[in-house]
Amino acid sequence: MKLLLKLAFDGKDFHGSQAQPGLRTVQGVLTESLSGLIGRPVNVTGCSRTDSGVHAEGYVVSVTPRTEEDGWLKIPAEKFHLAANNVLPGDISVTGAFIVNDDDFHPRYSVVGKKYVYRIYDSPVPSPFLRGRVYEYGKKISDDSIVKMDEAAKRFEGRHDFTSFMASGSKITDATREVFSASVARCGDVVEFTVFADGFLYNMVRIMSGTLLDVAKGKTTARDIPEIISVRDRAAAGETLPPEGLYLKEVIYPIKIDWLAE
Amino acid sequence: MKLLLKLAFDGKDFHGSQAQPGLRTVQGVLTESLSGLIGRPVNVTGCSRTDSGVHAEGYVVSVTPRTEEDGWLKIPAEKFHLAANNVLPGDISVTGAFIVNDDDFHPRYSVVGKKYVYRIYDSPVPSPFLRGRVYEYGKKISDDSIVKMDEAAKRFEGRHDFTSFMASGSKITDATREVFSASVARCGDVVEFTVFADGFLYNMVRIMSGTLLDVAKGKTTARDIPEIISVRDRAAAGETLPPEGLYLKEVIYPIKIDWLAE
Repeated sequence: MKLLLKLAFDGKDFHGSQAQPGLRTVQGVLTESLSGLIGRPVNVTGCSRTDSGVHAEGYVVSVTPRTEEDGWLKIPAEKFHLAANNVLPGDISVTGAFIVNDDDFHPRYSVVGKKYVYRIYDSPVPSPFLRGRVYEYGKKISDDSIVKMDEAAKRFEGRHDFTSFMASGSKITDATREVFSASVARCGDVVEFTVFADGFLYNMVRIMSGTLLDVAKGKTTARDIPEIISVRDRAAAGETLPPEGLYLKEVIYPIKIDWLAE
Repeated sequence: MKLLLKLAFDGKDFHGSQAQPGLRTVQGVLTESLSGLIGRPVNVTGCSRTDSGVHAEGYVVSVTPRTEEDGWLKIPAEKFHLAANNVLPGDISVTGAFIVNDDDFHPRYSVVGKKYVYRIYDSPVPSPFLRGRVYEYGKKISDDSIVKMDEAAKRFEGRHDFTSFMASGSKITDATREVFSASVARCGDVVEFTVFADGFLYNMVRIMSGTLLDVAKGKTTARDIPEIISVRDRAAAGETLPPEGLYLKEVIYPIKIDWLAE
């Protein structure tokens, strides 16, 4: 039996999601807080490795005791978020809980789809409320440019080898991923790139975002995207935008999950 | 000649707007940063005193040199925000600038209207992105309750003695204020109370917000509001909600201000 938790976290003060000795990480904070709450040492396994500064609105972890026995979870799953949010720091919060009895389920390897959003703040005036939570581009992006960025984003859709959008030096041998949907839209002073795929390469969303910003700058057009994909060369795509604009929005599994507490 | 600045600040790490020895305040930070930028000691005068933890999206200050002489401002007003945002910390930002030549203009005494918003977060799940920026009520407010809160807010409109909505112990002798408009609406997981008036008493918006929350709880109805106003007794109104939900949105002056940089 695994306890699945859905989480939101502000990545600003975390050195990424994965535990590292001596650093404050999402996994480290959760392992310590939840072991205390549950009353025994637990293992916390995340759905994805996220970099320092990256945020999440729908991260998923599994929680299991290091030595399993019946009845290890004394707190009812439907109340777990209340108990957990009492012990967790303010920059991480449990938004749902669910019990999985399938032993084969793995929070990372069972993933069938993930949705990310990259947020570009385009006001020339910095916002005290958004710093660290958006990429501050500092120049207004026109409505016309947003239409062009959206057209370019649509060209990412489909099953492609995305080597051009993978950080150089990655050891992945098969860079083929299927992008189910990709779009760009304005939300106030923030231009949002939303992308849903069966999986992502290292820095893929941040490189796609940099390439879309090149479309706004007039350096690239929507028609260039298929060519950038087909050359399979990191140098053909745009720069890697910084981590603070990136949000993991949602993780999709092949089982139906009714997140308690939502 | 006065330089007027429009500001946004996140009140979390400020001990209010007004300078206090040894404490980090909006006035203190501005005086130090802007004196350095302008190259001579300046006086910074605010439009309003705000408490620790209160936020602003449209706070106004005037900046004048301690000893005035022609040509004291070497930075063009239309570029002042860029220079200022380079030297100010990330939790305060200049969103506009304007030169006033009228000697009688005073950023506080010339105010003819102010608009505040009070934000109540009503999801049972805390948000890492909104902590310190909303009042976390923790219970869902129904659509029906929001309609009732809005009806109650409308009863604040008009010219009234608002003694019931003033912190006890205030030394104000005339508590008459004119509320031009007041309303309640949902925005995502946040219930917003917006109020526009010619002036406000100490804690007035936070007490009005507590009273409107009593309407959501069924302890008070819209029809009780005129009676609560007319008894002129602080004990008749609801509790003072905490500062972190309060935002100064806009300050209105009798002169037309074209905020440069907007």
